[in-house]
Amino acid sequence: MSDNLVCIKDFEVHAHEVLSRNALDYYRSGAGQEETLIQNNRAFSRYKIRPRCLRNVANRDLSTTILGEKVSMPIGIAPTAMQRMAHPDGECANARAAQALGTVFTLSTIATSSIEEVTKSAPNVLKWFQLYIYKDRKVTTSLVRRAEQAGFRALVLTVDAPMFGLRLADIKNKFTLPPHLKLANFDGTKSTDINKNNEEGSGLNAYVNSLFDASVTWEDIEWLKSISTLPIVLKGILTAQDAIMGVEAGAAGIWVSNHGARQIDGTPASIEALPEIVKAVGNKVEIYLDGGIRDGTDVFKALAMGARMVFMGRPALWGLAHSGEEGVKKILTIIKTEFDYALAISGCANISDIKPSMVVHESYYSRL
Amino acid sequence: MSDNLVCIKDFEVHAHEVLSRNALDYYRSGAGQEETLIQNNRAFSRYKIRPRCLRNVANRDLSTTILGEKVSMPIGIAPTAMQRMAHPDGECANARAAQALGTVFTLSTIATSSIEEVTKSAPNVLKWFQLYIYKDRKVTTSLVRRAEQAGFRALVLTVDAPMFGLRLADIKNKFTLPPHLKLANFDGTKSTDINKNNEEGSGLNAYVNSLFDASVTWEDIEWLKSISTLPIVLKGILTAQDAIMGVEAGAAGIWVSNHGARQIDGTPASIEALPEIVKAVGNKVEIYLDGGIRDGTDVFKALAMGARMVFMGRPALWGLAHSGEEGVKKILTIIKTEFDYALAISGCANISDIKPSMVVHESYYSRL
Amino acid sequence: MSDNLVCIKDFEVHAHEVLSRNALDYYRSGAGQEETLIQNNRAFSRYKIRPRCLRNVANRDLSTTILGEKVSMPIGIAPTAMQRMAHPDGECANARAAQALGTVFTLSTIATSSIEEVTKSAPNVLKWFQLYIYKDRKVTTSLVRRAEQAGFRALVLTVDAPMFGLRLADIKNKFTLPPHLKLANFDGTKSTDINKNNEEGSGLNAYVNSLFDASVTWEDIEWLKSISTLPIVLKGILTAQDAIMGVEAGAAGIWVSNHGARQIDGTPASIEALPEIVKAVGNKVEIYLDGGIRDGTDVFKALAMGARMVFMGRPALWGLAHSGEEGVKKILTIIKTEFDYALAISGCANISDIKPSMVVHESYYSRL
Amino acid sequence: MSDNLVCIKDFEVHAHEVLSRNALDYYRSGAGQEETLIQNNRAFSRYKIRPRCLRNVANRDLSTTILGEKVSMPIGIAPTAMQRMAHPDGECANARAAQALGTVFTLSTIATSSIEEVTKSAPNVLKWFQLYIYKDRKVTTSLVRRAEQAGFRALVLTVDAPMFGLRLADIKNKFTLPPHLKLANFDGTKSTDINKNNEEGSGLNAYVNSLFDASVTWEDIEWLKSISTLPIVLKGILTAQDAIMGVEAGAAGIWVSNHGARQIDGTPASIEALPEIVKAVGNKVEIYLDGGIRDGTDVFKALAMGARMVFMGRPALWGLAHSGEEGVKKILTIIKTEFDYALAISGCANISDIKPSMVVHESYYSRL
Repeated sequence: MSDNLVCIKDFEVHAHEVLSRNALDYYRSGAGQEETLIQNNRAFSRYKIRPRCLRNVANRDLSTTILGEKVSMPIGIAPTAMQRMAHPDGECANARAAQALGTVFTLSTIATSSIEEVTKSAPNVLKWFQLYIYKDRKVTTSLVRRAEQAGFRALVLTVDAPMFGLRLADIKNKFTLPPHLKLANFDGTKSTDINKNNEEGSGLNAYVNSLFDASVTWEDIEWLKSISTLPIVLKGILTAQDAIMGVEAGAAGIWVSNHGARQIDGTPASIEALPEIVKAVGNKVEIYLDGGIRDGTDVFKALAMGARMVFMGRPALWGLAHSGEEGVKKILTIIKTEFDYALAISGCANISDIKPSMVVHESYYSRL
Repeated sequence: MSDNLVCIKDFEVHAHEVLSRNALDYYRSGAGQEETLIQNNRAFSRYKIRPRCLRNVANRDLSTTILGEKVSMPIGIAPTAMQRMAHPDGECANARAAQALGTVFTLSTIATSSIEEVTKSAPNVLKWFQLYIYKDRKVTTSLVRRAEQAGFRALVLTVDAPMFGLRLADIKNKFTLPPHLKLANFDGTKSTDINKNNEEGSGLNAYVNSLFDASVTWEDIEWLKSISTLPIVLKGILTAQDAIMGVEAGAAGIWVSNHGARQIDGTPASIEALPEIVKAVGNKVEIYLDGGIRDGTDVFKALAMGARMVFMGRPALWGLAHSGEEGVKKILTIIKTEFDYALAISGCANISDIKPSMVVHESYYSRL
Repeated sequence: MSDNLVCIKDFEVHAHEVLSRNALDYYRSGAGQEETLIQNNRAFSRYKIRPRCLRNVANRDLSTTILGEKVSMPIGIAPTAMQRMAHPDGECANARAAQALGTVFTLSTIATSSIEEVTKSAPNVLKWFQLYIYKDRKVTTSLVRRAEQAGFRALVLTVDAPMFGLRLADIKNKFTLPPHLKLANFDGTKSTDINKNNEEGSGLNAYVNSLFDASVTWEDIEWLKSISTLPIVLKGILTAQDAIMGVEAGAAGIWVSNHGARQIDGTPASIEALPEIVKAVGNKVEIYLDGGIRDGTDVFKALAMGARMVFMGRPALWGLAHSGEEGVKKILTIIKTEFDYALAISGCANISDIKPSMVVHESYYSRL
Repeated sequence: MSDNLVCIKDFEVHAHEVLSRNALDYYRSGAGQEETLIQNNRAFSRYKIRPRCLRNVANRDLSTTILGEKVSMPIGIAPTAMQRMAHPDGECANARAAQALGTVFTLSTIATSSIEEVTKSAPNVLKWFQLYIYKDRKVTTSLVRRAEQAGFRALVLTVDAPMFGLRLADIKNKFTLPPHLKLANFDGTKSTDINKNNEEGSGLNAYVNSLFDASVTWEDIEWLKSISTLPIVLKGILTAQDAIMGVEAGAAGIWVSNHGARQIDGTPASIEALPEIVKAVGNKVEIYLDGGIRDGTDVFKALAMGARMVFMGRPALWGLAHSGEEGVKKILTIIKTEFDYALAISGCANISDIKPSMVVHESYYSRL
């Protein structure tokens, strides 16, 4: 394959060629029959852009703020696990790319680079920390403390994963983390080892089932607030009802997500779930979205529909698989450029020019 | 093919490889051009799961009751004919698998294992008996008596089959039961022989047309109640109107089904027919569903939409074709696990936590 | 290919193998990009059958009447041109098959067997004559007279063909009638020769443009009534407006048709056009339908939606191509059997048992 | 490939075989993932023609007027850039074909034949001039003056291109104009050279970004009116809001277009955008449409939905690629014939017979 990669899809095709099956399937797969995985992308096609003409777009500003901090564009890096399977520099390279582009990097709890490694490697990036709550709350408390000390600016609590979804490819592969890698946020405890119970299928499911706390409820948000003053973002909300409960529980942000279609197959695409959440709490908290963002027009659509920021998980992995930090920078630059063009050609000079009327569901056109 | 089978679809692919054409086509085929056969599966994709977050799902209970008796999960075995074509142990193996998993097994009238063989082989399984009404009512009366004596707990009267549908593959194959097998519930009478009239096409169509009673009406439910005190379940209802008539006729359960898409092509998928029936009689009788259940999320959807129990026919046959009782146990264990994960990740700890609002038609999202 | 043909689609595949390209394309093709050709079939799949249970269907009667005359089933033979390209006996064989099955045969004006030949060959068939109006009205008057004398019982006036549609395959093939055949209803005049102007494309388009009268209007129905007392059926109506005008003009029947998708690409499928016409004039005249009938369930759907009779054109040609009269009889027998099964399994013992509520558009199920 | 080309699609296939990748991709491609490119065509299939019967269509008149001037049919040539890549005679051949057929030719600003060359080559064609506004207004003023002097009758201002869309194929190809060609409307200035900045991708994007004025607003229409009395047509409108603003700004025509799907992927198909614009300003100005017109029925649909004229861009390029002027004449003759047949078979003898009720969205038929 020629290395003439000009869009995210090109990088995805490339990653399919170079990654091992074990790693590729882990990154690529969704839950069950993967219908939602397909729909996360395809659903964007059902929303149509209504560009406006003859507006001065000669000078454009793509920057925005999230939780009060400036980012160069409304596109950040979503947390994904075990990024060193894609490139030896893993999360560190990913964070450095986000730093170079001036956007936010979200580190996963189950990363192959530690909180401290990432901080050292990318000292100036805006960092958020993704959190799972362990049965042993001391594990979580310790992670929160270390994240605070390392300058992370928000806690992204994953609320859609009392268990990890059944990803059939991982079960077939009896997924394991390659032996030279480890869950770097843990040290010498059982929290480190995801490989010991993979006889029956994915070692990760066994790990999660044994260590994550499936009894977490809304009341635990209270606990989390009691141990940290960092703003809390709830990631994995798909209904207006839960968004409202999240706001009542004190969340600073609602992150609309179906976990990359990795939890239950058959949920709506995340972009489909966005409108009801915007309607319910859009005037109270910041709303983010991940799931299926592959093109600058997807970003435009999500923003017109009420998201303040979108996040990409897999595309950064394809960038890592290509060439580490450089690859992620290429990915981010491509989508930034695409978004810039979408903005300009739609008649917008900055983020606040993007209006809800500029994106409609395709059914709008069949009702005319 | 590697024997790394992790979902029902994998077992279906395997069965296509190992079964004879005559048997495979009989099990696999639907009526006519098989549009409904495809839609029975695909229609599930049109319903979307709305998972709820941050609920205590650490301890889950999948059990429920049907007609007052406990089952370990809301997934049972639907009646399918002539199971010994799939494995020498046929219906006996299937019943033992249901027994092992703690769920219900429904024996077909036109089985290749008799009422008594099944009972002896799986003495503790919860058993229901599927009934066709023969022109010669003594045949049916005798079946009912034997089922009662053998401890069957309900009669599942098939109401959608005055004739058997035209399954083109069977007509092409001039389907016959292999000579070493017989309709085991009959002995030495004409009721046994389905092979004598297959010159023109499927021997089964000729058998049904000559022996089944196409003049059965709602009044015959009265007759059936007069000869047995077993609860009667009506299998094959697709409209609210017939569900209401069924309740008025005294049915204890309404089994929503299009007979595995084997009767008339062009009916709705059974999951599509469910809502109107739930709305009409859901507060009066138990409602069951078969047709296209292939994944734990399908079970979740059917329950959220009002079914108390779902049944699977073909998947058990694919399990039999793989390894008899063990194969069916694998099938049942896979879907039980998938359903358990769907339950947990949707925020439900038990069956009663599944609410109607948790599943919506996809059009819900295009109207937002 | 094995000669194990069990449905109309099998015969279509067979015909594709045995017919010459010139003849096959003429029979097979639709206008333009052939979207309507595909939709004529596919649209039936969008209507769903709602079968009713537990009705006495032991004895079924498929017969009905059209224009007061009894037919054995509500399925007749539509007019198609130049049938001797499919089999040496052409229209005669087709008429004999209709006679054998007890249904109606409609002879085309541009047939390769004459009015008199067909009458002699199938003296007892119920015959209708399809009419085009020639610029030279004496041509048409003569055809009407001969049809009356030969015992034809209705005139089927094609109202959708002021010109013949552009069928690209015929244009590519520069379609001609094979030299051993002729338009048998004409003798030694220019009306006979469709081959003289095919340098630019289809010879048939040139023929039609030079001889058919594109100035015919509703007032010409008056003229036609003045020269014949035969009932007039208007074939090619697709809108309620024209159906109403047809009834006002004195038509005895409205034949809903898009001319086998051969006139303009982009019309609705004929089954889609049926409901508005039934609503407008269903209580005033008989309504027929052709276009895409390939299966007994299609017949059932059309009747539930208000058609009194359906007609098939191409399927009879595939039957002719297979084995002449015997082939058409097989086609008619297959669809009669399929319709009989659809009737029974839907809970109907005769035509009048088919109720409008038994067929719904698929959108019915997405609104529940 | 045989040269038996009978529809526009055939010419498209042929062009794919004979053009260089650089040229073909430039002509063929759309923005981004090319969803809108596909939809521009496919959307026409969602509108259905309702033909009327028994009307006198023996003599048909396809002519109409645009901006007061007669054309032989409602189908003109849309502006496309750099046509000499398709044929040595490029825009001149295209204009001569339009002249031969009696319709309008629109010359692009970034043509490879100059205003004066085209005028000399096709002195009698009705000519419109497509305009981009350069940062250096003197460039634009000069183009307008020359167009006026050369007898162009309208200015078609492109309003949807503050920047040119990202066409991935051009980026991959690092598109350049072949060295023997030039932007012929410019002479010896930087405006001529689109090839100097193609290291990073398409040279055209770099050209546009450096020279076109992305700060143009509605007020610049005022400026344009101040320098020319030619009527102004606004090309690239997709919303009712902009159409209204265009009329208020004094436009004589609104040209509904998504720029051949080349600007932002994800806009509606242009035919989908037409109805709201017709509803908003259809009684005030002339409305034109381009995008996806490939067949005479597409023309019929656009006119029934309110367009006065449709334009084709790529089809003329395929004609050029085939045989220059002759090829474009074939293209125009084919679609004129197809439109004539669509008109006649729908029961229309001239353009004013085409009524809005004759075309409906397909959803009309699912609501019956």
